[in-house]
Amino acid sequence: MVFRSAFTIFVPVNLLDTIQYPADLRKLPLEQLPQVCDELRTFLIHELAHNPGHFASSLGTVELTVALHYVFDTPEDRIVWDVGHQAYSHKILTGRRECFSSNRKLGGLKPFPSPEESEYDTCTCGHASNSISIALGMAVAAEKQGSKRHVVAVIGDGSMTGGLAFEGLNNASSTPNNMLIILNDNDMSIDRSVGGMGEYLHKLHTSSAYNKFRDRTARMLYRWHVLNDDRKGRVLRFNNAIKSLLTNQRNMFEGLNIRYFGPEDGHNVVELVRTLQRIKDMKGPKMLHIHTIKGKGFEPAERDATLWHAPGKFDPETGERLETESDKPQPPRFQDVFGETLLELARQNPNIVGVTPAMPTGCSLSIMMNEMPERTYDVGIAEGHAVTFSAGLAREGMQPFCNIYSSFSQRAYDNIIHDVAISHLNVVLCLDRAGLVGEDGPTHHGAFDLAFLRPIPGLTIASPMDEAELRRLMFTAQLPQKGPFIIRYPRGRGVLTDWRCPLEEIPVGRGRKLLEGNGTTAILSLGPIGNVAAQAIQESGADVAHYDMRFLKPIDEEILQEVATRYQHIITIEDGTVSGGLGSAVLEWIAAHNYQPEVIRLGLPDRFVEHGSPAELYHIVGIDKAGICRTIENCKP
Amino acid sequence: MVFRSAFTIFVPVNLLDTIQYPADLRKLPLEQLPQVCDELRTFLIHELAHNPGHFASSLGTVELTVALHYVFDTPEDRIVWDVGHQAYSHKILTGRRECFSSNRKLGGLKPFPSPEESEYDTCTCGHASNSISIALGMAVAAEKQGSKRHVVAVIGDGSMTGGLAFEGLNNASSTPNNMLIILNDNDMSIDRSVGGMGEYLHKLHTSSAYNKFRDRTARMLYRWHVLNDDRKGRVLRFNNAIKSLLTNQRNMFEGLNIRYFGPEDGHNVVELVRTLQRIKDMKGPKMLHIHTIKGKGFEPAERDATLWHAPGKFDPETGERLETESDKPQPPRFQDVFGETLLELARQNPNIVGVTPAMPTGCSLSIMMNEMPERTYDVGIAEGHAVTFSAGLAREGMQPFCNIYSSFSQRAYDNIIHDVAISHLNVVLCLDRAGLVGEDGPTHHGAFDLAFLRPIPGLTIASPMDEAELRRLMFTAQLPQKGPFIIRYPRGRGVLTDWRCPLEEIPVGRGRKLLEGNGTTAILSLGPIGNVAAQAIQESGADVAHYDMRFLKPIDEEILQEVATRYQHIITIEDGTVSGGLGSAVLEWIAAHNYQPEVIRLGLPDRFVEHGSPAELYHIVGIDKAGICRTIENCKP
Repeated sequence: MVFRSAFTIFVPVNLLDTIQYPADLRKLPLEQLPQVCDELRTFLIHELAHNPGHFASSLGTVELTVALHYVFDTPEDRIVWDVGHQAYSHKILTGRRECFSSNRKLGGLKPFPSPEESEYDTCTCGHASNSISIALGMAVAAEKQGSKRHVVAVIGDGSMTGGLAFEGLNNASSTPNNMLIILNDNDMSIDRSVGGMGEYLHKLHTSSAYNKFRDRTARMLYRWHVLNDDRKGRVLRFNNAIKSLLTNQRNMFEGLNIRYFGPEDGHNVVELVRTLQRIKDMKGPKMLHIHTIKGKGFEPAERDATLWHAPGKFDPETGERLETESDKPQPPRFQDVFGETLLELARQNPNIVGVTPAMPTGCSLSIMMNEMPERTYDVGIAEGHAVTFSAGLAREGMQPFCNIYSSFSQRAYDNIIHDVAISHLNVVLCLDRAGLVGEDGPTHHGAFDLAFLRPIPGLTIASPMDEAELRRLMFTAQLPQKGPFIIRYPRGRGVLTDWRCPLEEIPVGRGRKLLEGNGTTAILSLGPIGNVAAQAIQESGADVAHYDMRFLKPIDEEILQEVATRYQHIITIEDGTVSGGLGSAVLEWIAAHNYQPEVIRLGLPDRFVEHGSPAELYHIVGIDKAGICRTIENCKP
Repeated sequence: MVFRSAFTIFVPVNLLDTIQYPADLRKLPLEQLPQVCDELRTFLIHELAHNPGHFASSLGTVELTVALHYVFDTPEDRIVWDVGHQAYSHKILTGRRECFSSNRKLGGLKPFPSPEESEYDTCTCGHASNSISIALGMAVAAEKQGSKRHVVAVIGDGSMTGGLAFEGLNNASSTPNNMLIILNDNDMSIDRSVGGMGEYLHKLHTSSAYNKFRDRTARMLYRWHVLNDDRKGRVLRFNNAIKSLLTNQRNMFEGLNIRYFGPEDGHNVVELVRTLQRIKDMKGPKMLHIHTIKGKGFEPAERDATLWHAPGKFDPETGERLETESDKPQPPRFQDVFGETLLELARQNPNIVGVTPAMPTGCSLSIMMNEMPERTYDVGIAEGHAVTFSAGLAREGMQPFCNIYSSFSQRAYDNIIHDVAISHLNVVLCLDRAGLVGEDGPTHHGAFDLAFLRPIPGLTIASPMDEAELRRLMFTAQLPQKGPFIIRYPRGRGVLTDWRCPLEEIPVGRGRKLLEGNGTTAILSLGPIGNVAAQAIQESGADVAHYDMRFLKPIDEEILQEVATRYQHIITIEDGTVSGGLGSAVLEWIAAHNYQPEVIRLGLPDRFVEHGSPAELYHIVGIDKAGICRTIENCKP
């Protein structure tokens, strides 16, 4: 049987139903918490089977969440979740069980904790590694305000590879505070945790033999009066020495003056509660290292947590994943076209290497990774390093393809400017998840990339309208001396079922005319939104010219010259923010050349767009078929 | 006597004159290297006394530089300098001694190492903490290419507090490579190194007693056959255990699988050479920890390295710092206005706290720090953390003023979006060194901030035209519920000698009309460049209206309405990149409202601007008085 938690059927009362808020939870005796955890897990599995979301992470933190809300006086005490994936149990225990089925849906519960939604949510937590810095700020504020409130940051081992987490940790160790950091170690972030930190944590975990040995020896030495409680420094040194002797490893957290506890079993809720109660009021920064299993309690997810990170719908009894079938062959996902094409290119060009910050599966670099493991690098959640490392590779003549999700590339902005662009290095940066990503909401929309990259001198910035264009752009980008080359594309499927076109060069900075127009209006689009524009033109029946710009930078001045002289209305369409991207580039060129057509810019508005399905969101912001039709119709001849 | 290195006058040959390139250095016998170092130091002191530059750091790395070029086969072997401050000796030994007096001057040697300038320079190194990532990329490339070349990264302890350095270190430990990392530990970066890492390194340094004890004990245990060379694991564990026992500290580098050597005296060139020779061909990543003194060999600089970071001109014999005197009272530096005003505000508003990533002196947060140390936070070189930590403070009702240099704020881009803007927190971000900074060149110009911040929803973005405006903006920003508030201003002096105006609120999003114009042209300026525009208008004698926009966002639509309807020509002037900033915002508004005046945008061009004095550079890019006059004259009535 796949689904283990059949326990609930043997108990008379459903405890979860009695818990609206953590205060209710805190009324229960300690020994009932395992039952609460079981019920919570059952609830999660059944909910997520029907309403897809982040699955494996949430199952891993059931006991931790119950223990935290049991021990700490939330919301007065603050829990800062690093990456909201792990916080579903938290939502359910903090007044959101009944509306949990609206999670991630338009107008429903937000995909990640958000202070706008609940006083139990303390910060925006869509991007990894920020929890320690946030919590430190909150802990320092508590101290300044004379408050006794506790602040707890919960961070996964994957997030610990991010530089921001280290910066926070480094500072937490020197700024007076009483913060507790829970290191939720599940051996992976979305894929698996990478780098020395991963191995380091693994070693810490396997050192429990040390604990036993230490305790026994310490008792002996106490009896002999070599150690006593007044000689604390000596005790500490003794402990450290024994630990090193037995495990050949060091504990960097103690090195950084953060008291370290653990590792503990993160699925033993009773022990967790006891430990938390013991350490919660200790002064100074503390770290509790717990070990959890992603997907805990649901066998298929325990076996392959990466696959079950966000699995879509599934059968909660059998674990069968339910895909919505289609009669006709589906176009491929842009991700797979990237993955397959990169492998194809890498077979031809020995200089090509692939780099990803912890997203090999999500971006499909895994395809190349499987065949050429020695030419692909998963650097962990470390976007800045991914880009600067790529710069080092390019400096020596390698041709890196570095794939980063668009919204995460905000983490690598200085690296793109300082380490790549100033030196004009041949780094190809593939920005996945560009445009509105849908259910993951404002932290994950790839809204700003066009606007923040365009001012950087010497970049080539392109966006393919379909899969074949993606292939051609990738081919072009790896030709000699192309300099820094950005290719951005959205999550999900393209439009071509027959996509394996020959690999041909596209002249850099050249768009293409898709539709000759003899009316007064021309549409300039960038990227896959051009397909929506094409449908809108067809539907409207208007005589509108359509150009796929392909490149935001360098922009095709021949096209601009043509449309500025021939048309009265120019509609620009992009799936990035309307300030600073394609529309602004077109305006700037037209102003600089003293033409005077009307320019209507369609794109994302100057506000954070919430979560919902991509179709719903594009409709709301007015760049779906209907919105574009409306805009076309408003252009008076 | 201040200047110690009078040694050179007793020796017959000037060795430095015989060294054009490292190959010449490598011909010398080891015992002559101390003399080379002395001569190099003398040369540096005399050069920098007359041609100001980064002083203290460069004196600290004399011996290291000589040792590196002596042991390694540069340029075939690669040295990656983290922050070019420390690389002056490197320049002098690599063919640039004779033109060294042109350092940092227009058309002269670049301020930091640059591959465009010399094959001995391996990367752009203006921003801290990137060396390990770059070097790792180069080391991996060497391995892929079957090359035996060595790659050495030289990183200061200050740079080690940056998250990027940690990301690089973490990856270096898991990616096969033979890189050598030199940790140049001088107890500070520009100010002093901050956080757990600083204390950690200090502890490592003081553990040399351990080395002696270990060696003696190990010899004994070898004699007893408890240890032998076949039992390497046991030897390692033994060493670690002894180290822990004696020093109560751990070595995180060994924890991360990077072999650790040191600490060594970084001013003993002969020993450094021997150590480097011993470890250079060892397999796997290695770290050599050396201890150096900033300002080494020049007493005043040794005493106060922060003051002597970049001291300007000075007397090389007495250490007296020579300031160019002025007859009339000078306007204050924007930095001091910031510092004094923040202290004034903090006295009134108990919620105000100050945050800086390692630049308390440079940005003058030190003024508040001296009076209210408990309300100011120097978080080390950690821009991302500085912003996210401020977000945590703001979340709990504190009012942080976080001061970051404009070009370094690129490191905090995602933190501004994700941790501050999405939650609309009351964080005031003061961006110092905005616009062209001059001699530090393209890595340090604050060119992109307006363009990359403008697309972010909900930000207020302001730039004061003078010191009084800076004070008023700072006052305004800390009033309740202002949300994220950016204030950017340049390095150096303003224009008012009488600057202590009353603290008054400026309505957010409201500019001001400075000059009524009855001609056909209006100038819209943002920030202190407006003073240059005012001079240009006066000089040109034309009847031009002038508006100080004050706010890039929200932009003053009343002004835009007024100028769009009244004038044929609108000239926008900003000291940021011309793509995406004020000019683009004006174009966007005018296009959206269907007006048709000509808009001429002045700003920084779409290329990286080199180094030189600010006046020279503003002249080159055409936004000095002459350039603006020219633009005014080109506007036909």
